[in-house]
Amino acid sequence: MKKVKKVLIANRGEIAVRIIRACHTLGLAAVAVYSTADKEALHVRLADEAVCIGPPEPAKSYLKQNNIIEAAKMTGADLIHPGYGFLSENAEFAQKCEDNKLKFVGPSAQVIALMGEKATARQTMKNAGVPVIPGSPQGFLTVAEGLRYASMIEFPVMLKASAGGGGKGMRVIQRKEDFAKEFTVAQQEAQHAFSNSEMYLEKYLPHPRHIEVQLMADQFGNVLGLRERDCTLQLNHQKILEEAPALMVSNNTLQKMLEVSIRAAKKLNYEGAGTMEFLLDGPKNFYFMEMNTRIQVEHPVTELITNTDLVEMQLRVALGKKVIPPKMHLENQGFALECRINARGAGKITALHLPSGYGVRVDTAIYQGYRVPPNYDAMIAKIIVHGHNRENAIALMKTALDETVISGIQTNLDFLAQLLEEPEYLHNETDVNWLEKLTDAK
Amino acid sequence: MKKVKKVLIANRGEIAVRIIRACHTLGLAAVAVYSTADKEALHVRLADEAVCIGPPEPAKSYLKQNNIIEAAKMTGADLIHPGYGFLSENAEFAQKCEDNKLKFVGPSAQVIALMGEKATARQTMKNAGVPVIPGSPQGFLTVAEGLRYASMIEFPVMLKASAGGGGKGMRVIQRKEDFAKEFTVAQQEAQHAFSNSEMYLEKYLPHPRHIEVQLMADQFGNVLGLRERDCTLQLNHQKILEEAPALMVSNNTLQKMLEVSIRAAKKLNYEGAGTMEFLLDGPKNFYFMEMNTRIQVEHPVTELITNTDLVEMQLRVALGKKVIPPKMHLENQGFALECRINARGAGKITALHLPSGYGVRVDTAIYQGYRVPPNYDAMIAKIIVHGHNRENAIALMKTALDETVISGIQTNLDFLAQLLEEPEYLHNETDVNWLEKLTDAK
Repeated sequence: MKKVKKVLIANRGEIAVRIIRACHTLGLAAVAVYSTADKEALHVRLADEAVCIGPPEPAKSYLKQNNIIEAAKMTGADLIHPGYGFLSENAEFAQKCEDNKLKFVGPSAQVIALMGEKATARQTMKNAGVPVIPGSPQGFLTVAEGLRYASMIEFPVMLKASAGGGGKGMRVIQRKEDFAKEFTVAQQEAQHAFSNSEMYLEKYLPHPRHIEVQLMADQFGNVLGLRERDCTLQLNHQKILEEAPALMVSNNTLQKMLEVSIRAAKKLNYEGAGTMEFLLDGPKNFYFMEMNTRIQVEHPVTELITNTDLVEMQLRVALGKKVIPPKMHLENQGFALECRINARGAGKITALHLPSGYGVRVDTAIYQGYRVPPNYDAMIAKIIVHGHNRENAIALMKTALDETVISGIQTNLDFLAQLLEEPEYLHNETDVNWLEKLTDAK
Repeated sequence: MKKVKKVLIANRGEIAVRIIRACHTLGLAAVAVYSTADKEALHVRLADEAVCIGPPEPAKSYLKQNNIIEAAKMTGADLIHPGYGFLSENAEFAQKCEDNKLKFVGPSAQVIALMGEKATARQTMKNAGVPVIPGSPQGFLTVAEGLRYASMIEFPVMLKASAGGGGKGMRVIQRKEDFAKEFTVAQQEAQHAFSNSEMYLEKYLPHPRHIEVQLMADQFGNVLGLRERDCTLQLNHQKILEEAPALMVSNNTLQKMLEVSIRAAKKLNYEGAGTMEFLLDGPKNFYFMEMNTRIQVEHPVTELITNTDLVEMQLRVALGKKVIPPKMHLENQGFALECRINARGAGKITALHLPSGYGVRVDTAIYQGYRVPPNYDAMIAKIIVHGHNRENAIALMKTALDETVISGIQTNLDFLAQLLEEPEYLHNETDVNWLEKLTDAK
């Protein structure tokens, strides 16, 4: 009799539930792990087996590599799916899985390490022909050097302190005429703040948008480019609302983005799901920021416009199956929108009504009576809608948010509903700084 | 200031909720009506206004035409959406709406009446070039006449008593050689049972499948054929599980079905959503059964494979908008499956967990703490899944059913889960009698 393969899910919350469902749909058994804070969690209830791996603190449970490896060995798991966050981009953990003959659902430890080191990742991508933000090839100390690099990069430029952070020594310089003056002040600031007056330059993008490309690669060198997402709306570097397709990207630019992304993944011998994150400057220019070597929170918007099950694909790839390109029809995949529902603090959910129906999907692990523990990520649900076009998707989302009831804890539901009324959002005239400015102004 | 149009929903349960959501997505206000049994119902909570129209008995509330018309006038509604069941195919009600300057969301009273009379509907469709089941043009009394008709129709034939019912005087006759003998016995049976020995003949379909075509027509004579559904699985003449597309229909036959259906709707000056129900005999021959002049319970499977919002379309058509054909790609719309969750008796839902996530949609009006009243239809939820293909859709449905928890009342969840394990179902080797036989055998 054919042994049913077992997948241990090294995660919690909605993504653990998402993965368990994909396992079951594929006929795979699912093993949950949980901290003592998650005894009553939905992922524990839906899994075929569940192993407690430690106390509530992530460092002692969901990040405790040896406990997870032990749980996998104890239950006879064949694969480990890391989800997102926690150990999903931890090269050491991926290596430990390999050492223990557990198939890590994702790329090799080496590729994870390479992409985890941001400077190395940038250089690797540059070598693979992926555009990166033009910058000075090295740090410098004088106006003359700076001006030489600035004219190479072209104004406007962003001057930064090599040792910098927190905005100290940072200047946007619009014109050549202003360079000497701004440089002098910034350098003094840098020297004062970091005891280091070395500066470097990057091209300044005035209104960049965050656009990312979804990749899926198998063990045989086939790489699918599953279109793009627009994740421009961020607050405190956290995405809050994601869209697909990205309407500000021209078809021509999209083709280039997909081409360079696929080429880079092939050079890396990439395996599994991965995301190439870019900054888009105007409709044409895009620059590599980083690569995420795991499934992403916002993957459902891609699933809806491409009719693909990305988590199922991850599992199939890990089991040695080839990826098959979906027959995508770019002109008629509709428009998908995701809102992240965040809890503001812990507590028991005393009443719950989640939306459903035409075009509405909810990925969550909460239920009526569930106690949101204080120990983990604030994101408790994702509402995802799929409409004919952006306007219709926004209308579906408004209707969905409007009927959602989550009592007993504070959430950002009202904030999201207000966001969907903002004229700049409705006209799609935002950039990565827009939401921050909007909330500062209020 | 533009007045927001108001829609009164003359229904309850999941379809009322479905219509309210579509209203809100279109920016329309929704008025609910409810019986005293439905004070706590979800459709009442989600609507912008709600009017009590009577006691629990349907005849005194949801079927009470004048109360509903009064509620519409009182709240200033512009349109009335009848949903399915109740007054949705009641020509008198449609006429009353018209008389009271309320736009009935559906075809004219005249068309409803025409399609409601099954013999007239059949003749109308025959005249419009739609195939109907071949039969003797009239009743007959002798073997000779019968044989003449039988050879016109071609064996096998079904012999029936003109005054018949309950299987009395009914015979399937496979070959010409058996006709005289079978006729004589059947006629005696008919005479005995109904004091009437007139017989008639119909072509016998050994293993028919129930295939239906979804139509949507606007007020300008444009009719969309939104593909087909397979609703072969029925129990006590109630559909229980529906699929789209219908894999047993060849593309050629589907094109013909769509063509004759659209042509017939145009001849009728049809408006709104309508369904042409056919019996399919083998991969090629199909015969008209009846036309439903309303939205159907199983409409979501069509929505999933065509990326269209049928209820939104109904409302747009009623508001005088033109229908726009969706850009359908027949080869890549995946496969959709619906299971109807029926309550076995009334009672309070003490615990509830409904499935969600990739490819899963639930249309329902129940919630934790909701008391299912004893007065209405048993159907309390529809679980609908959308997979890459039939096998994947079945796997998604199994996973979805498996995690569903409805405590406090009895349901058919286990029955549905078992149904999905039946080899004949999995091999798609069923007919309209199959489920009845299966449950009889158990």
